[in-house]
Amino acid sequence: MTEPAAGVDTDMVQALTSGNRTALARAITLVESTRPDHRARAAALLAILPAPRQNTWRVAISGTPGAGKSTLIEALGTVLTGRGHRVGVLAIDPSSVRTGGSVLGDKTRMPRLAADERAYVRPSPTAGSLGGVARATAHTIPLVEAAGYDVILVETVGVGQSEISAAAMVDTFVLLGLARSGDELQGIKRGVLEIADVVAINKADGDGAADARAAAKQLGGALRLVHAGASSWLPPVITCSGLTGDGVDELWQAVTEHRESLGADGVLAKRQRQAWDLVGMLVRDHVLHQLETSEAVRVAQAQLRPQVQSGSVSAAAAADAIIAALMRR
Amino acid sequence: MTEPAAGVDTDMVQALTSGNRTALARAITLVESTRPDHRARAAALLAILPAPRQNTWRVAISGTPGAGKSTLIEALGTVLTGRGHRVGVLAIDPSSVRTGGSVLGDKTRMPRLAADERAYVRPSPTAGSLGGVARATAHTIPLVEAAGYDVILVETVGVGQSEISAAAMVDTFVLLGLARSGDELQGIKRGVLEIADVVAINKADGDGAADARAAAKQLGGALRLVHAGASSWLPPVITCSGLTGDGVDELWQAVTEHRESLGADGVLAKRQRQAWDLVGMLVRDHVLHQLETSEAVRVAQAQLRPQVQSGSVSAAAAADAIIAALMRR
Repeated sequence: MTEPAAGVDTDMVQALTSGNRTALARAITLVESTRPDHRARAAALLAILPAPRQNTWRVAISGTPGAGKSTLIEALGTVLTGRGHRVGVLAIDPSSVRTGGSVLGDKTRMPRLAADERAYVRPSPTAGSLGGVARATAHTIPLVEAAGYDVILVETVGVGQSEISAAAMVDTFVLLGLARSGDELQGIKRGVLEIADVVAINKADGDGAADARAAAKQLGGALRLVHAGASSWLPPVITCSGLTGDGVDELWQAVTEHRESLGADGVLAKRQRQAWDLVGMLVRDHVLHQLETSEAVRVAQAQLRPQVQSGSVSAAAAADAIIAALMRR
Repeated sequence: MTEPAAGVDTDMVQALTSGNRTALARAITLVESTRPDHRARAAALLAILPAPRQNTWRVAISGTPGAGKSTLIEALGTVLTGRGHRVGVLAIDPSSVRTGGSVLGDKTRMPRLAADERAYVRPSPTAGSLGGVARATAHTIPLVEAAGYDVILVETVGVGQSEISAAAMVDTFVLLGLARSGDELQGIKRGVLEIADVVAINKADGDGAADARAAAKQLGGALRLVHAGASSWLPPVITCSGLTGDGVDELWQAVTEHRESLGADGVLAKRQRQAWDLVGMLVRDHVLHQLETSEAVRVAQAQLRPQVQSGSVSAAAAADAIIAALMRR
C-alpha cells in the first residue's frame, strides 16, 4: 500500500486531474486511511476536488461468489474502453477486510483491463470494518471520476450490507445471477430484487444457455409481479456470458436505458439524496460499531443472555442493563 | 387506560393466572408504561410470571391498510374459540402512536370477538415510539399466555419496521394480500415475502374469487422461485375471505403445518433466539432514538446538509462533525 505523500494536496489534485495514475493511487490511499491526520487531509482534498469534466455513470455489479462478476467486468469493461469510455473498477468486498485484500488477485482476475490504458482497476480497500470499506469506496468514486474515468464499475459481493452500501452510491445496480435449472436460480437473494435496476443471468453459454433463458423468463414474470404498480422502471432481465461476451452489449443497453429513464435531473437528485443518505449511514455505523465493540456491553451481554433465554430476565430489563453498561464506559 | 394498582405484584400474577381480566389489563398497562418506577415493577412482574399451562402459538397477521385484517381476525378468532381455543388479540400499529390509539375502535372492529368470553382483545399500545410499541407488545404476549390464552394473534400494519418487529416475536407470520387482477397484487411488499411463513390472498369472495385464485397461483410460482434451495419450508399461498369465512379453515391448517414443520425443539430454539434478538433490537432502537432526538445533531445536520449536497463537504467529514456533536451533548 502506497504511503500518502506529505505536502500540499493541491499538487495531488492537479496531478490526479491531469491523469497521473500514481497521484490517483495516492489520493485513494489517503481517503482510505483511518488515521486522524489523514482523515483531515482527505476531507480537505475532497472539498477542493473539481467536478469531472465529463458525464459519469456509476454501476454496481453484484452477485454471490461464483456468479462470474470478475469475468463479466473484464468483458464489459473491455467493450466499453473499445468504445472510447474510460473505465474505473472498484470493489466493496467484506471478505477483503478479513483476508487483508487481494491486490494481486484483483489484477490477475482482470488481466486485460489491468493492462488497458483506458481502465483503472483498484483493489478493494482493507480498512477495518465494512463501514470503513463502504466509506472508502464512496470517497474513491469522485477521485476516479476527477481523474477522467466516466464509467465506474463497483464490484460487490452479494452479502447483505455490502450490497445495500453499493446501492447507496451507484446510479444503476446490476444483479448477476445464475440459472441452475429451468425454475431454480442461484445467487438471487430475495431482498436484492428490491434494489436491482437490471438483472443479468450470467454464464448463458454452451449447455447453460437454454436454462439461463428459461430462468430469465420466469424471473421476469416474478419481477413484473412484485413491481406491479410500484415503480415506473421495471428491471429488465437479460442473459449474458462474461466468457463468450454474448449479451454484454445488451447488458450495457439495459444500463443505458435505465440511465435515460432517470433523466439528467433525476440523476442529480438521486446523487444528492445518496450523498446525504451516506452521511446518515456513516453516523449510524459509527454508533452501532461503538455498541458492538464496547467491552462493558460484551460483559453485560454474556451475563444476561442465559437469563433472557430462560425467561428469568425480561428483554426490556436486559436492554436497560446493557444501555446502562454502554453509558458507564 | 387503567392505572396499575399499587401493592405486591404477586397478587396481580395470581389474579391474572386465575383468569381475572381486570388483573390482566392492569398488568399489560404496567408493562406498557414508560415511567421508570413502572418499568422496574414490570421487569419484576415478568421475572416471576409462571410458564403458561398449555402450549401456545403466536401468529402475526400482517397486511397493508385495507387488506381486511380485522375482519379476518374476527372470522379466524371465532372459528378458533369455537374449537375450544382461547384467543388473545394484540396489535402493533404505528399509526396508533400518532393518533393516540383506538380503544373503542378495536372493540367495534371485532364485535364478536370482543363479546366472546374465550377471547381477549387488547388495543394497540400508545407508547411514544414504534420501538416502545414493539417493546410493549413483546412483553404483553407472555402475560396473555400466562392468563390462559393459547393462540395469540398479533395484528400488524404492513409498514416496514412494525412487520419486522412482529416477525421477531411470533412463531408463524401470515401475510395478507389482495388480488387486483390476474397478474397484479396489492399490499404485497417485496421485502415482506422474505419473512412470510404463510401467504393468504384475502377477499376471495363473489366477483373477486377468480382473480384471487389466479393471483395465488402466480404468487406461489414466484415464491417457489425465490425460495429455491433456500429453506425447507416453502410458504403456501392460500385464498380466503374474512367476510364469508371461506378458506379460514385452510389458513389455520397452513399455520398448523408450519408449526409442525418447526417441531417442539425448533419452536423452543426459535423463541430463545427471538428473546435475545429482541434485546439487541431494543438496545439499537434506544441508541438510534438518542441520535434522532439529539438537538445538537439536528443543528449540525441542518448546517451540513446543503454543503454535502453541493459537494463542498465530504460525507465522511460531515459524519465526523455529527458524531462530534452527539458526543458533546
